[in-house]
Amino acid sequence: MSIVTAEIIAIGDELLYGQIMDTNSHWISQELDAVGVRVVRKTTVGDNRTDILTAFEEASKRANLILITGGLGPTQDDLTKPLLAEYFGCEIVEVPEAVAAVSAYFTRRGREMTRLNILQGHLPTCCTYVPNEVGTAPGMWFEQKGCYWMSMPGVPHEMKKLVKDFVLPKLSQVFDLPVIYHKLIKTAGIGESWLADLIKDWENALPNHIRLAYLPSLGHVKLRLTAFGEDKKVLATEVDEQIHGVLPLISSYVYGYDEETLETAIGKLLKNAGKTLALAESCSGGYISHLITTVPGSSNYLRGTLVPYHNDLKEQLLGVSSATLMQHGAVSEETVREMATGIKKLFGADFGLASSGIAGPDGGSPDKPVGTVWIACAGPDFVEAKLLQLTQDRMINIQLTGVAVLNLLRICFLKHNK
Amino acid sequence: MSIVTAEIIAIGDELLYGQIMDTNSHWISQELDAVGVRVVRKTTVGDNRTDILTAFEEASKRANLILITGGLGPTQDDLTKPLLAEYFGCEIVEVPEAVAAVSAYFTRRGREMTRLNILQGHLPTCCTYVPNEVGTAPGMWFEQKGCYWMSMPGVPHEMKKLVKDFVLPKLSQVFDLPVIYHKLIKTAGIGESWLADLIKDWENALPNHIRLAYLPSLGHVKLRLTAFGEDKKVLATEVDEQIHGVLPLISSYVYGYDEETLETAIGKLLKNAGKTLALAESCSGGYISHLITTVPGSSNYLRGTLVPYHNDLKEQLLGVSSATLMQHGAVSEETVREMATGIKKLFGADFGLASSGIAGPDGGSPDKPVGTVWIACAGPDFVEAKLLQLTQDRMINIQLTGVAVLNLLRICFLKHNK
Repeated sequence: MSIVTAEIIAIGDELLYGQIMDTNSHWISQELDAVGVRVVRKTTVGDNRTDILTAFEEASKRANLILITGGLGPTQDDLTKPLLAEYFGCEIVEVPEAVAAVSAYFTRRGREMTRLNILQGHLPTCCTYVPNEVGTAPGMWFEQKGCYWMSMPGVPHEMKKLVKDFVLPKLSQVFDLPVIYHKLIKTAGIGESWLADLIKDWENALPNHIRLAYLPSLGHVKLRLTAFGEDKKVLATEVDEQIHGVLPLISSYVYGYDEETLETAIGKLLKNAGKTLALAESCSGGYISHLITTVPGSSNYLRGTLVPYHNDLKEQLLGVSSATLMQHGAVSEETVREMATGIKKLFGADFGLASSGIAGPDGGSPDKPVGTVWIACAGPDFVEAKLLQLTQDRMINIQLTGVAVLNLLRICFLKHNK
Repeated sequence: MSIVTAEIIAIGDELLYGQIMDTNSHWISQELDAVGVRVVRKTTVGDNRTDILTAFEEASKRANLILITGGLGPTQDDLTKPLLAEYFGCEIVEVPEAVAAVSAYFTRRGREMTRLNILQGHLPTCCTYVPNEVGTAPGMWFEQKGCYWMSMPGVPHEMKKLVKDFVLPKLSQVFDLPVIYHKLIKTAGIGESWLADLIKDWENALPNHIRLAYLPSLGHVKLRLTAFGEDKKVLATEVDEQIHGVLPLISSYVYGYDEETLETAIGKLLKNAGKTLALAESCSGGYISHLITTVPGSSNYLRGTLVPYHNDLKEQLLGVSSATLMQHGAVSEETVREMATGIKKLFGADFGLASSGIAGPDGGSPDKPVGTVWIACAGPDFVEAKLLQLTQDRMINIQLTGVAVLNLLRICFLKHNK
């Protein structure tokens, strides 16, 4: 088994001029990494003959696999197909099967096919035609001197389907790929360096064929375990054993694995227990409600949300006492506790969550600087509150509050709902 | 004046393996495009000596300007600095000014500087030291045979500050850049091809030195006018005249210019008129409230938001009649009108906005398929409602509803609030 190296080439002026962000190359990197192919370079070039041919030439010297996106539109500024034909020294001819596929695509949509669209079914003779079921530009697969090439359209969902349906299966045929097994442990409520400190002994004792990576994002840290070997089942078992070993050290921070998000995780907790939730968001302004409602089926457990952006609404609807507001202010432990209890009662839910803070950039004081946020969770027979000291950035404060509130619910739920 | 060509090189294994998305190169592309520098290639390579040196070598043959991000950390796997020294054939020596800056950075944060951090103040003798005020890795500027190089850390906000404070001013010194003037016209509520159709005669009559680009995003289309010439003031006047020419054709879709967003635009309308707003979001689940509250100072005009995710809350809190819900259902013109009127009254606001729809993936019926959304705006003496027929995708439906509701407020405000 030798290492397979890959290069990704993205083609299009719009990528160079910053009109469109190339998210394709990033996604392809992740997919190739997951099957043990080593990406050694990513290149973006414009719709320019010399630049594209140079990129082909250079890539072929370094990589066993070259994945190309873009430049396959029907208009004259799209050069990828003629230049691939030129590079491989072959003609472009009509491929009846490909023309029929383009025609069928338009028929399904009740639209007329133009002369230019018919040309999308003309392909270099030296390529294997790869049908694109969700668009008009076909995929093209080339093989030359042990190097494999795939050209795909730049439209993300078309490219992704071609990679998943054709490229990845093909790679395991033409290459002797390592067997790799990945597992993500999802954590919230702890920073990367603290997490690393908690698990350093476990990490140092990992066997050589299991690697650990820390993937931090706002409020979250993902731990990625990657195992290399001969047999996927064996690797899965080994990784699971390692996870059993580390869990006791970090269990209170772990909300799920792989595709799980904090929103889907708390959704499952609530749904399985048949419990409902209500939100009173002040400084987070509806963001937590938005996170929860992005999950299909969230109406099963979310009763609703109130954003009482002004104190009179906190009093009148949530029943926060004016004495509390006068004495402690809207951003205080007392207020946020009354908000959580109030929304639970008002909406007839099992759990009430609340946030109140100074998101910024204005509204801070020496006592309560920008970034001061109180959050609370009220359950059947408890209220827990927590103080967050966040940043100077309004958007980051809103997002971090969202993660912290959902995580507080998770922790309270596990603690009190046994 | 000759064309300045640039290449952007991003360095780091984490970029190739898909652990981090390279947003830096995209941002740099936009900044260079805005000053008339033509980006001809973007390259990403790993922390590998040969690959980095090859990238330097290749780029120097094609570009007048080479911007490098990443690989400047204090640890041994970060190779950019030693390889730049090797490429330019010079030594790395201590730069007292740079060491002092790193030291001051740590002092400000009350943290201890390590031996590795001190090395960040050691730089190649052939570079100009460029202070990094918001991080520990300095910028390095090189000049060789008419080609200019800048190496910057990969942390986005550090890189951005160096580009804005140093690189862009430097470019106008060392290159004879074209004078360019950009203006963005921001529209909502109309698709790209309809917009293009409305303004095609105007577009065809644009003078040669003024270019138009359509930049579509979810629910929005930006029109970017770019003028090339000798004098920025003259260009600005010419572009403004063109905008005066096109506005009568599209005025009802235009919500602002340049940095304006739909959220800030409606915020200004409300604030200037001294009016307040309340939201009742069902299918949008808090997303519109989140959009509005991302704007600093939004508490001046947003009274608050209710997400009545269940019908009983629509009845009890908003006063939607049970007869309406029974007869027409929650997703109906009648319900959404009562929601908008109800929230306006409940929260004591001047305007009430409401959404109710089937975001999906479940809940659709032949009568009301997934993507059916009703929205309404209630003002002092009117209620306007609108039906949206959106997509199969839950997230896209939520986002498009957000844009449509904010745009409905804008239109109603302009129509009724004269």
